[in-house]
Amino acid sequence: MSHKPLPRPGGRSARVQQAVHAAVSALDDGEGRTQLTIPMIAEHAGVTPSTIYRRWGSLRELLADVAAARLRPEAPLSDTGSLEEDLMVWAGEFMEEMTSRPGQQALADALGSASHDPRTRCYDWQCEQIALMLSRARDRGESSLPSIDTLIDGIMAPLLYRVSHAPESLSETRLRHWVRRALGSACENFRANIE
Amino acid sequence: MSHKPLPRPGGRSARVQQAVHAAVSALDDGEGRTQLTIPMIAEHAGVTPSTIYRRWGSLRELLADVAAARLRPEAPLSDTGSLEEDLMVWAGEFMEEMTSRPGQQALADALGSASHDPRTRCYDWQCEQIALMLSRARDRGESSLPSIDTLIDGIMAPLLYRVSHAPESLSETRLRHWVRRALGSACENFRANIE
Repeated sequence: MSHKPLPRPGGRSARVQQAVHAAVSALDDGEGRTQLTIPMIAEHAGVTPSTIYRRWGSLRELLADVAAARLRPEAPLSDTGSLEEDLMVWAGEFMEEMTSRPGQQALADALGSASHDPRTRCYDWQCEQIALMLSRARDRGESSLPSIDTLIDGIMAPLLYRVSHAPESLSETRLRHWVRRALGSACENFRANIE
Repeated sequence: MSHKPLPRPGGRSARVQQAVHAAVSALDDGEGRTQLTIPMIAEHAGVTPSTIYRRWGSLRELLADVAAARLRPEAPLSDTGSLEEDLMVWAGEFMEEMTSRPGQQALADALGSASHDPRTRCYDWQCEQIALMLSRARDRGESSLPSIDTLIDGIMAPLLYRVSHAPESLSETRLRHWVRRALGSACENFRANIE
């Protein structure tokens, strides 16, 4: 569950990671997954297979590492002027991306690794993004803000559950329901009572 | 996302599934996962590799199918006399099992398959179990019962999210918080307003 040390940018380790990730992206068209092998990836990346085995251990762990990198949000968080809309945009983009074919594959790769590292990174990113949205809301003077945990458990968790278990049950209405419920002041006292 | 037809009990298809699942369980000690191959499993199960490829397509899908079968609850749902405690016992057992090493592996296998079938089955089982707990509560005369969706999204989803992303953050207190919040009548009106 501990993070692997991040490679120094520009260091050899970083260049190897970049080359190997690029090779996986180039060779993995989502089809014929079963044909993908570490020697194939190593040749395409210009490294030795043992370099890959040493660093990632197995193809499955490598695919999870590449998937986690893909799951890392690129676009800066949009600032809509309200926490509710910020959350709707953020979760809406995640929903749209994760219900796409490549998104479903990346999710399965990240969730399918024996190591927690890829998921721990996704969790950390999601917490960071929520923290940013909360601090913006605080700066705007929005009050009775929920905790990061409440937003992870109330929005990201059911979203991820349904993306992986029942994507056809997802809808913007459902998403709005989660967001409002997580922000719902009606629940604040109740929550305060049991915490 | 459609279910594979369940093999007729006692039929050839069922016997093949049983033999192959047993072979995976026997050969997969959780260690040396990377050594596990379909020909190895086929030999141990007394079937041809092509039988396995035809039916499961890949090792990854086979492991997911075996994992889903492991995730299917065996013990009958305990009836504690209240929905809150029924949910606590049910979710508590899931938490305990899924944070164990074999549980984490089974979870990763089930969540890591490209096919939705294993996860759809887990989702169906969880909905069935919740439906049973709700009907018991109804028979006991408990009122203002939440929907199955509310309990999936409010309890199982955050539990599964933290089991796979941040198991160290799990605790019985947190579980109790989710259960009470999902049952919390303080939220009912709020929810009613937006549905």
